[in-house]
Amino acid sequence: MEKKDLGFGKGASNTGTRFINKDGSINVFRKGLPFIRPYDLYHTLISINWLKFMVLISVSFFTVNLLFAWFYTVLENNALSMVDEQHRFWDSFFFSVQTMTTVGYGAISPISMAAKVISSIGSFLGLLGFALVTGLLYGRFSKPMTKIRYSKNALISPFQEKNALMFKMANQRSSKLIEAEVTAVFIATIDGKLVYEDLKLQLRKINFFALSWTLVHLIDEDSVMFNHTTESLKKGDAEVVILMKAFDDSFSQTVYSRMSYKHYEFIWNARFDSSIHNENGKMGIDLKKMDSYTKLN
Amino acid sequence: MEKKDLGFGKGASNTGTRFINKDGSINVFRKGLPFIRPYDLYHTLISINWLKFMVLISVSFFTVNLLFAWFYTVLENNALSMVDEQHRFWDSFFFSVQTMTTVGYGAISPISMAAKVISSIGSFLGLLGFALVTGLLYGRFSKPMTKIRYSKNALISPFQEKNALMFKMANQRSSKLIEAEVTAVFIATIDGKLVYEDLKLQLRKINFFALSWTLVHLIDEDSVMFNHTTESLKKGDAEVVILMKAFDDSFSQTVYSRMSYKHYEFIWNARFDSSIHNENGKMGIDLKKMDSYTKLN
Amino acid sequence: MEKKDLGFGKGASNTGTRFINKDGSINVFRKGLPFIRPYDLYHTLISINWLKFMVLISVSFFTVNLLFAWFYTVLENNALSMVDEQHRFWDSFFFSVQTMTTVGYGAISPISMAAKVISSIGSFLGLLGFALVTGLLYGRFSKPMTKIRYSKNALISPFQEKNALMFKMANQRSSKLIEAEVTAVFIATIDGKLVYEDLKLQLRKINFFALSWTLVHLIDEDSVMFNHTTESLKKGDAEVVILMKAFDDSFSQTVYSRMSYKHYEFIWNARFDSSIHNENGKMGIDLKKMDSYTKLN
Amino acid sequence: MEKKDLGFGKGASNTGTRFINKDGSINVFRKGLPFIRPYDLYHTLISINWLKFMVLISVSFFTVNLLFAWFYTVLENNALSMVDEQHRFWDSFFFSVQTMTTVGYGAISPISMAAKVISSIGSFLGLLGFALVTGLLYGRFSKPMTKIRYSKNALISPFQEKNALMFKMANQRSSKLIEAEVTAVFIATIDGKLVYEDLKLQLRKINFFALSWTLVHLIDEDSVMFNHTTESLKKGDAEVVILMKAFDDSFSQTVYSRMSYKHYEFIWNARFDSSIHNENGKMGIDLKKMDSYTKLN
Repeated sequence: MEKKDLGFGKGASNTGTRFINKDGSINVFRKGLPFIRPYDLYHTLISINWLKFMVLISVSFFTVNLLFAWFYTVLENNALSMVDEQHRFWDSFFFSVQTMTTVGYGAISPISMAAKVISSIGSFLGLLGFALVTGLLYGRFSKPMTKIRYSKNALISPFQEKNALMFKMANQRSSKLIEAEVTAVFIATIDGKLVYEDLKLQLRKINFFALSWTLVHLIDEDSVMFNHTTESLKKGDAEVVILMKAFDDSFSQTVYSRMSYKHYEFIWNARFDSSIHNENGKMGIDLKKMDSYTKLN
Repeated sequence: MEKKDLGFGKGASNTGTRFINKDGSINVFRKGLPFIRPYDLYHTLISINWLKFMVLISVSFFTVNLLFAWFYTVLENNALSMVDEQHRFWDSFFFSVQTMTTVGYGAISPISMAAKVISSIGSFLGLLGFALVTGLLYGRFSKPMTKIRYSKNALISPFQEKNALMFKMANQRSSKLIEAEVTAVFIATIDGKLVYEDLKLQLRKINFFALSWTLVHLIDEDSVMFNHTTESLKKGDAEVVILMKAFDDSFSQTVYSRMSYKHYEFIWNARFDSSIHNENGKMGIDLKKMDSYTKLN
Repeated sequence: MEKKDLGFGKGASNTGTRFINKDGSINVFRKGLPFIRPYDLYHTLISINWLKFMVLISVSFFTVNLLFAWFYTVLENNALSMVDEQHRFWDSFFFSVQTMTTVGYGAISPISMAAKVISSIGSFLGLLGFALVTGLLYGRFSKPMTKIRYSKNALISPFQEKNALMFKMANQRSSKLIEAEVTAVFIATIDGKLVYEDLKLQLRKINFFALSWTLVHLIDEDSVMFNHTTESLKKGDAEVVILMKAFDDSFSQTVYSRMSYKHYEFIWNARFDSSIHNENGKMGIDLKKMDSYTKLN
Repeated sequence: MEKKDLGFGKGASNTGTRFINKDGSINVFRKGLPFIRPYDLYHTLISINWLKFMVLISVSFFTVNLLFAWFYTVLENNALSMVDEQHRFWDSFFFSVQTMTTVGYGAISPISMAAKVISSIGSFLGLLGFALVTGLLYGRFSKPMTKIRYSKNALISPFQEKNALMFKMANQRSSKLIEAEVTAVFIATIDGKLVYEDLKLQLRKINFFALSWTLVHLIDEDSVMFNHTTESLKKGDAEVVILMKAFDDSFSQTVYSRMSYKHYEFIWNARFDSSIHNENGKMGIDLKKMDSYTKLN
């Protein structure tokens, strides 16, 4: 097999922080990019949570209409018909809302040439805006977002007369993950050199990832982790990077999930408590028990 | 080749129910999830049948407008213009409908400040709602849903001087399935231990899955099913899990289909009747004959 | 390598017609399907040509509005305001159009309870309808449709001191096809038995399929076509089925294309004329020359 | 491994221009295509930059409404209600805008039969148009567009006691590229024959392409570039074509990127300056330093 690299580039060095953040993002930055980047903006808008998204588009809608109201108000005296002089600004505001949403009751309508031009622009922008929101909503929903629940810690425990590194994953979504496979890479600074090494996993491929999945790396003579101790792992600022690949049946797309365990997230000499149980002849998982383990003595 | 597991986790045990339901869903449950899960909601909405979907959005639309009508009615006396006092509630209701759909005839229009605010919110929510429905409709259509018709039973019959397990699949949709391949896994409790074992299939890959496909597992000395009887399969609560993978030409996506046969769905000593016939020089399939078999004596 | 089958099922027999039609569709039919099949309907609507599609939705829109106009007209005398009794039907028709498109000028508006209910339903259906059309339009555009231009004939000509079967393909779209690969299968009835056999192709994988591609199967001793003549191919009702797979760079999806050559589309002893030429230092292809060949003597 | 070809066809010859343009497009043309090609139009509309796109749809919208205004004006005297005879054309224009955007204030409304027909067509076309724009906007955003920043030059420098060809790539977008792999093909006319040859790359696969990536082809005895000089490469009009394939995590799709280096873009005897640096314990890349190199002496 061809040798793969983790891909952080030659200049990568152990800075004491993580390579992979807990949420799966990669801990890097870019300099020299242009300020406006439509695609990155789009991806931000489909990635932020629903509350933020709804607040953002509501506030944008409100602000744009304030701006249009201000246009109608300052422009001329008789821009719009039937406007009560007392509430001129707010009547202009509601006229703008009725224009952008294309409701157009007509109780208020543009009279002057300028108002007609501005309201035309308003309705055009309104339609474009809602076309954009339609796309964003669909983008938010159709973006495959696997929610893999990883155990908070990786355990190092006796296994088959040796030690083994173990961690657990659970599929938090009702979508079925098919032909799932996991890669784990060990990163540490050993003798002043950054070492990347694949960890051989038992049962690294499964047909259905329906409930939970325990991955085991036997720390035998062939393992890069052999003879390491809490101290040596700390000294090398060790990190184990996890990459899962699967086919998401609900989205009909290949999905990936990333995570990492830093040396201080390893627990020595402990075993995971089972998070699987049966109820009425149906297998189930209790996601609250994913992190639970028992110390061996 | 690397060993794959079926992925039900270590705690899996034979509970007497099926692992895979007849509709292809996996027979598991989750505990400890948050109550509101937008993505699972979305997938429910694009997976329910068309009647349910249309009823659901119609009822939602009706209910939301009832709510808005109630707002306009209780708010003030002169919220809306031209409202007939006799039908105040229903006139408010129809005004709300005209606002949410952005028709806005203007025969009725908001007069009071509060009514203007509420109708603005109504038209904004209306547009968001229909943007959502646009996405849902597209999501429903663009979701690749292979409809594989499996034979109701799997047959165990003499084949090449041994026994063979046979089952049949047909492609019910006019979409072409390309490079289809099938995996079958035997699951049973043998000597108190849950056994998972791949069943070797003849002709498990085909270029086009256009009509029907008969899959045959020869029960020879290498087969985990060798020497099993109706009784031993029942005792072990045996189940054969089927996973099909193909490329759907209409959707340009990889699709999967799942099914399983429990031991009580095995028919011994029978042969499938042909469901293929030719008409006017064109090959065809009669889907009604998919389950039909003839007992051998 | 595992043996793959063409997938027409056991009952397939040589009926004298083609397996694969010239447009790439598979020549089969299905019986026993339900009458209404939303997904097949959707795929019809995104597959028919643009003219048919535009006529279909225009006619549907016109017909639905005729129906609504008829409702408003027969219902009551004073269903709608401001309707000229002389043009009652057509005024109702235009009111319906203004409702379904959510324009709602308000010059005509619903007065009676029944008209208000019907117009509400009209505007609701209008929005759903245009949501559907939005999805269909996007579906039509985003459906990867490779347009592969195959040479009309396959040639059998002397090549490397033997005979070779040759056919040509060209990429008709400006989208780039990456990592393209072709499979060819020979089907014929030989000694009363239907024979499927892969034809070994030279240069069956290319990195970019930008212009034209000539595929060559050397008819040597290992080929199923060895020693065949025009007569024996005709007797066996021979057909060569072509399957191309590639990654379409414009759509970011894997695409397939199918074609077949029947024995009467084989030309013996001829060579393709080149359809490639250079203009101003740029390579190009003339699609009109794809079928052109020269007889050898 | 099977031999792949670059796919420019047999007639390809070295014309002195590039095979692959700097923007990744392939330097070819097609003759004999129909004039109107909806899909190519669609792909143009989702590929042009945002400024051009916005100008194009604004101008189209303006032009179509001018046309409708002209219809209303020339048609009859009393086509529309409440039109000021002085501004008849522009009032007709704004009426058309209000119709196409489905605002429909109603201050102006169609009176004559012809005006009612035309405004119905206007609102229908308006909705179709905005449905199209919705699809185009979504298509623009959901099209995976990797932005790979290649170093301007490829360097040929001493490496492991031999020479090596080196080039650098950086991921300009915040989307993560997973399981990236690069292929490089050398093309040159040698002894009058066009030679295509894969260049063996060190580290041609990486797990995450987060920052920058330096690819190295060791020019040893097995390399097609062995013993070549600036002069021989120029004489052969040499070009190195690069193809990168990766999985884009933001779009959940496989993406490709293409580039090429012509012989006059090779720099002999130089080394890339590092574009990676650490800030506050976070690795980063400075895209402005991607092209920077230092001459060795």
